[in-house]
Formats: sequence, C-alpha cells, structure tokens
Amino acid sequence: MIAPLRWSDGAVELLDQTSLPAAELWLRCEHVEELASAISRLAIRGAPALGVAGAYGVALAAADGPAAGAAERAEYAAELLSGTRPTAVNLHTAVAGGLKAARAAQHGGAAAAALEFARGYERDALAAERALSDFGAELFESGDRALTHCNTGGLATAGVGTALGVIEAAHAALRLGSVWVKETRPLLQGARLTAWELRRAGIPHSLLADGAVGALFNEGAVERVVVGADRIAANGDVANKVGTYPIAVLADRHGVPFYVAAPTTTIDHDTATGADIPIERRAPEEVTTLAGVEIAPAGTDAANFAFDVTPAELVTAIITERGVLRPPYGASLQAARP
Amino acid sequence: MIAPLRWSDGAVELLDQTSLPAAELWLRCEHVEELASAISRLAIRGAPALGVAGAYGVALAAADGPAAGAAERAEYAAELLSGTRPTAVNLHTAVAGGLKAARAAQHGGAAAAALEFARGYERDALAAERALSDFGAELFESGDRALTHCNTGGLATAGVGTALGVIEAAHAALRLGSVWVKETRPLLQGARLTAWELRRAGIPHSLLADGAVGALFNEGAVERVVVGADRIAANGDVANKVGTYPIAVLADRHGVPFYVAAPTTTIDHDTATGADIPIERRAPEEVTTLAGVEIAPAGTDAANFAFDVTPAELVTAIITERGVLRPPYGASLQAARP
Repeated sequence: MIAPLRWSDGAVELLDQTSLPAAELWLRCEHVEELASAISRLAIRGAPALGVAGAYGVALAAADGPAAGAAERAEYAAELLSGTRPTAVNLHTAVAGGLKAARAAQHGGAAAAALEFARGYERDALAAERALSDFGAELFESGDRALTHCNTGGLATAGVGTALGVIEAAHAALRLGSVWVKETRPLLQGARLTAWELRRAGIPHSLLADGAVGALFNEGAVERVVVGADRIAANGDVANKVGTYPIAVLADRHGVPFYVAAPTTTIDHDTATGADIPIERRAPEEVTTLAGVEIAPAGTDAANFAFDVTPAELVTAIITERGVLRPPYGASLQAARP
Repeated sequence: MIAPLRWSDGAVELLDQTSLPAAELWLRCEHVEELASAISRLAIRGAPALGVAGAYGVALAAADGPAAGAAERAEYAAELLSGTRPTAVNLHTAVAGGLKAARAAQHGGAAAAALEFARGYERDALAAERALSDFGAELFESGDRALTHCNTGGLATAGVGTALGVIEAAHAALRLGSVWVKETRPLLQGARLTAWELRRAGIPHSLLADGAVGALFNEGAVERVVVGADRIAANGDVANKVGTYPIAVLADRHGVPFYVAAPTTTIDHDTATGADIPIERRAPEEVTTLAGVEIAPAGTDAANFAFDVTPAELVTAIITERGVLRPPYGASLQAARP
C-alpha cells in the first residue's frame, strides 16, 4: 500500500502525483488554500483519496489560527474544498462530516474534533478498501487477465485501493494472470501512476493506448474489467474517469464481466441517475499538450470531459466493503446503505 | 487538398508527417530504400497514400540504374515495399500493379511503364476520392456534427481524402456543423494531422482524447461518424486505425450512423472476413513515450496494436467512388467490384 497523504505536525503532506513517475516529491500544505490548489491541479486525486484529503483539509483550517475562530475557518475550508472538484461525491461528504464535527465541538475543541473526524474517516476508508479488495478477489478465477482504467490504487485512495486493490488482492490470492493498463489520456494516470504502483507491487502488467481496448477484446485477451468510481447514482449508474464507458460497452458486447469497485462512501443516494451527476470539464490544454509537449497546432480547441457515465445495465457487479452488489442496483445499493 | 508526395526529377518527395504540425519538411527519396524507411517510420501513412507511394516506389527503383536491370529492380522494390506495412491492402495492390507494368514493358521500357502506371494510379485515386467525398456529403443534413478518427485527409491519400474528404465536401455543401477530432494515440494523427488540415481548410473543429468518445455520445453531441479504412474484407468487416471499433460500438448503441469512407482499392475481395486481416503490432515505445518524453516508468511493457477490426454489422454504410454501399456487404461490395 502507498498512502497519498499524511498528517504531520499540523500540516497535510502529500505525494505530488503530477511529478510521478519521474520524481517522488512530497508537498507540505500548512494552509487549506495550498491543499485546495493541490487538489485542483491533481497533485492528489481519486475519489476516496479526495475524501481523506477533504476531511484533513477541514482539520487543517480549523487548527490554523486561534481556537475561537476554528468553526468559522472549518466552514470556509469546507466551501473552498468542495468547489475544487464537482464529480467525486466522497470529497463533499467527507468535508461535510468534518465541518459537522467541528461545529458540534464544545469549549474551543473544534480543531481537535475535526482532526479526530479525519483520522476516523481515514481509518474507516482503509478498512473498507481492504474489505472490498478481498470481496473482489473472490470473483477471479485462476489466470484471469484484468483490464483497468485510470489509477485506483493506494495513490487514489486511503492507501489500499479500490479496483487496483481488488487486482492486488487477486494477485495475492494467486488468481491473477496479468493486468492491462489503459494509459488514460489526457493526464495519463494509467501510464504514470498505475504502472508505477504495479511495478512496485511486482505484478505483471502491460500498457495500452486508450483506443486499443477494442483490439484487446477482439483478441479475447481479457477476462475481467475492474474500474473504480467517482460517484455512483442511486440506480447504479457510475461516473468514473473519462474512457470508462467505452470499455463497458465493449465488455458487454464480448461477454466479459465489468466490475466497479468502490466503497459505499462513493454511492450518492441523493442522486437518482447518472444524468444528474455533474461532469467536470477541465482546461483544453490538458488535451492539446502531452507531458508538456504541444501535440496539436497552436490555438486548437479541445473538449476535455474529465468523466463519463456508464449506465447501470452495463455493470456486472459493484464491489463494496459490504459485499458484491448485483442488479437491480436500486435495491442492492439501498440494502448496502450504512 | 494537400498531396502527401510528388514525383520530381526521378525522385519521390514527401511531406514528413512525423514533423507536423511543428514543421513542414519535405524529404527527397532518390532510392527506394529511403522511401521504404520513410514508410516504416510513418513519414507517409494512410492506406490510399501508401498505394500512391508504393506505385511511385516501384517506378523509382526501376529508374534507379541501367535500363537492362529495371524489371529486376522493380521486383526487388515490390518485395521491399510490401514488407513495410502489412495491414493496408492498397500498398500491396499498387506495388503489384507497378511491377506488372514493368514486367510487361518491351525494349527497356520498364522504368517508363512503371512511372506511367504510378501516374495513372494517382490520377485514378484522386478521381475516386473526389467522387466518394461527394457521395458522402449527400448523407449529411444541415448542421450535422461529425466525429472522425486518425487522419484521412489529403495527407493520408492521393490528396483529397476519404473520411475527411467527405467532411470537407459536407462543409463545402454547407451541411457540416463542426468536427470532433479524436487525437488517436499513440501517434496522434488526429491531433497533429487532422487538426492541421482542418485549420488550413477553415473548418470548425474540436479535439478529444480518445477515451472521451463515450462522454461525447452521452451528451448527444454527434450526428455522424465518418472514418477511413486500411482494408475492408469481402464481408464488410473493416480494419482501420486502432480506436475505430470502440466508436462503432458506441455509435450503434446511440443510434448514430457509422460510415466508412474508402475507395474500392481498399476492398480486399480475397480476404473473407476481418479475422483474416493481419493486424500490425508496432514498437512499445510508441505508447510509452511521446516526442521523446517518457510517460511511463522505465521498462514498462506496452501492447501496441496499430489497427482494430470493426465487424460489418456495426457499419451503417461504406462510402466509395462507386456510390454508397449498404448491407448486406457481401453482395454490395461484390457489385461495386471494378
């Protein structure tokens, strides 16, 4: 496991994921604005990791000044952090939880309460990731080749992973053949981060351009798809990193199971369907450049959808810490509600 | 239009497409080995352009020495050029045509015969591209937004284009809304070449990461898909640049017409189905690096499929110079045979 952030002497330290795999740089955020900026530029990303970062961010702001103003600073931090990324629901619920804890505290204890909430949130997230990884590994048969997208390992979570946690657990259970890693343009989280994590873990893997997924299914070279989620609607529609939905359509056509691995904190019972999930659009420059190199004529416009929505009917199962949920998801997601 | 190569004083000159859009460099090939090397490293690419290059390549070799050995040099050139790229059928048939012309020539006229064949091949290819572009434009309704993949414009052909020829003709007919250009990893022919051609032509366009195609269909932002082909099997299965098949599956799901635009020289009546088309695999470094920048941890393996096969059942129509062919393709492709 590789935790993407740590609380250290009243500051949040995080591994700058924009520098990976070339360099392992830790950023120290002493003020919540620094953390918000780090989140915006994706120095830390991944729905479960954003939850942990959000909880610690509220604690950071609460501790960053006199005790008397801690609850107000927590409120400010909650709003600031919530505005950084719209799609991942974990960020919003974690921030709300930290704020609630700070507000409920008595006698100047808001900062301590927010920190206690963050520590508990992180602990629970880790336990959930361990549990869902083990549930997911049981779905594998010996030698199965898994296809995954984006990065859903320790870096994207509290430290164990979701989809990549499942894949690592399947490897530990001696059921995994190898892993196909989609590079995940525009920001290459697959090529940069997932390949880095799999190499550290000693798990055999091979990189693919995103468009190559059709050729892979045509070759019959994949037995399981496992991806993460940024938000799961009440009906089981899944918002995840852009590029997920095309895999689901292909997996369906080729009869390959398509699993979504996510803790129940990623389920948004207040969002009815995927059509109601806000899809973040990011700067065109992320598409028109690659690793700092301009790849299109100067001035080229680009549409940069950060996520897409996979309809529930294409999802074979949702792997959570409360077990493997099956369709119809309206009922099974409700039953798994904490 | 922008022709990708020209015959000049006994040499083949070609626009080095690996340098675009940063620089417009013309390479002069005085020997067929230089041309073969340029084809291998994709300085010139695109199935119809490879046909033209192959025909001129045989002529180049035939002219490159004493008249007595011209037919033998043509034979050598045909073998050398055919070995450069396995998937595009145009290269193989054009080379075979040039060789046949050289062999049939009398009294030391092999070089002249091969050149005459090449000039005729180019002229016919241009006429076919003009005709199919006009046929394709008629399929558009006013304001239609087109999605395309890879590069199928003048650069990839004899000079008019196939899928991009259709799109340009739809624009000229005032029927085109705008164009969505998939960047087309690993070698970014969409971002580098199609965006460059559309900018020159003054046609509104926007770039997309390959994985973003699902989000685009979810938004209902595309009315027509038009792609090219490297080889069409006798049953209508289509081999084209990797990343094509995922678009076809999505277009089918969303009820968006999926058109393949190609001259009849791209139809291989001797190949029964897509399963029989050889799919080129290229070097892993094309995936793990970009413009010399490493994007994955050192030593990361990659699977680099250059093409994929879209089954005929997902193809709404095949736009050729002999008209718009519809399913069942076994019959319509046969009927369009010259």
